[in-house]
Amino acid sequence: MNKNRVGIIRVLSTDNLQVLYSHETIIKNIYPELEIISEAIKDQPNGVYNQETELESVPKILEIAKDMEKSGVNAILISCCMDPGLTLIKKELNIPVVGAGMASALMAMSLGNKIGVTSLDKVIPPNLHETLGNKLLAYQPSEGINNTKDLLKIDGKEKVLKTARDLRDQGADCLLLACTGMSTIGLAPLLEEKLNIPVIDPIIASGGLINYLVKRK
Amino acid sequence: MNKNRVGIIRVLSTDNLQVLYSHETIIKNIYPELEIISEAIKDQPNGVYNQETELESVPKILEIAKDMEKSGVNAILISCCMDPGLTLIKKELNIPVVGAGMASALMAMSLGNKIGVTSLDKVIPPNLHETLGNKLLAYQPSEGINNTKDLLKIDGKEKVLKTARDLRDQGADCLLLACTGMSTIGLAPLLEEKLNIPVIDPIIASGGLINYLVKRK
Repeated sequence: MNKNRVGIIRVLSTDNLQVLYSHETIIKNIYPELEIISEAIKDQPNGVYNQETELESVPKILEIAKDMEKSGVNAILISCCMDPGLTLIKKELNIPVVGAGMASALMAMSLGNKIGVTSLDKVIPPNLHETLGNKLLAYQPSEGINNTKDLLKIDGKEKVLKTARDLRDQGADCLLLACTGMSTIGLAPLLEEKLNIPVIDPIIASGGLINYLVKRK
Repeated sequence: MNKNRVGIIRVLSTDNLQVLYSHETIIKNIYPELEIISEAIKDQPNGVYNQETELESVPKILEIAKDMEKSGVNAILISCCMDPGLTLIKKELNIPVVGAGMASALMAMSLGNKIGVTSLDKVIPPNLHETLGNKLLAYQPSEGINNTKDLLKIDGKEKVLKTARDLRDQGADCLLLACTGMSTIGLAPLLEEKLNIPVIDPIIASGGLINYLVKRK
């Protein structure tokens, strides 16, 4: 049995193959030995960004996850830091299922004890809050960064850098970028260079955890 | 710069090269791309097994860790589930430092929400308790298994299996073997096959986390 097959579920609809494969590409660059298939949920071009869109996405994610399990993948990544449907899907499937939020929270805890988190929403995703427990120092969104399109604007990176610097100055010994859109624009290495503390990229963290899970036996 | 060099610190003294390299060998079998150097602390043939021996080991571990950092390794693994000296050594060094206890607790949390832990001591190592938080279901040592030599006796594996079954029957959805001696005898796959829930091997978990840390940039 091939132990290295991974299914990535993208929680936004897209016809753009570059977008569809963007997370797969990041992981393959680091773990070329993994076989990856990516699939996107239908009819949610704006993805998952609040409770309503999260609830809408869960049955779609579950259906794709079940199909992927049938096709023989060894583990599944729900590629969103809100981990939509994670608890339900773990119960329904017999293979490991990882959420990008959970993966990045766990990896952050290996590097820091006072973790600063930033993302797009006003409040921290509850799954991250729960996993980080008393290792969460603070959550802070960036002013003017309300969706992934804002990240792509000319001053997008600068705005997140300001927030990240604030978190470090509050005493964070590790930063967690809790939005997979921040992976797409390669924000973590930039912030790490400027701030000199570890910065967790959620897709790279997910790749690291998934690579462990498919090889651990 | 080579990103794939790892130093493993063995917390027992040994002249037996097979013993010295045993954890390195387990990790290299899964992650052959890692370059690993192993070094053991001096004058502790019985390793670390209580608070006194832990305190005795910490300055020795710190000294080896500093030397390894100078020699250019990209990450260090303290190969003991009690994580002796981890907090201190993380502060003193500029590279990631992982303890086998921390690594296995984090990896267990990716697979389960009710984690059963077994090891050699009467009580759970405090670092594991703290990391697992409310995901710790129960801790239970095995009757008659007080040190690593007991593990090697003819009924050693059977005794741990009994404990593991108890923990599963109490509701554990993941087991954590919090003793690296249980890695050496390959206990995790045996228990996993018998009990049909994931069983975390601390050295394989450490390898997975270290492999992420040295490649994540």
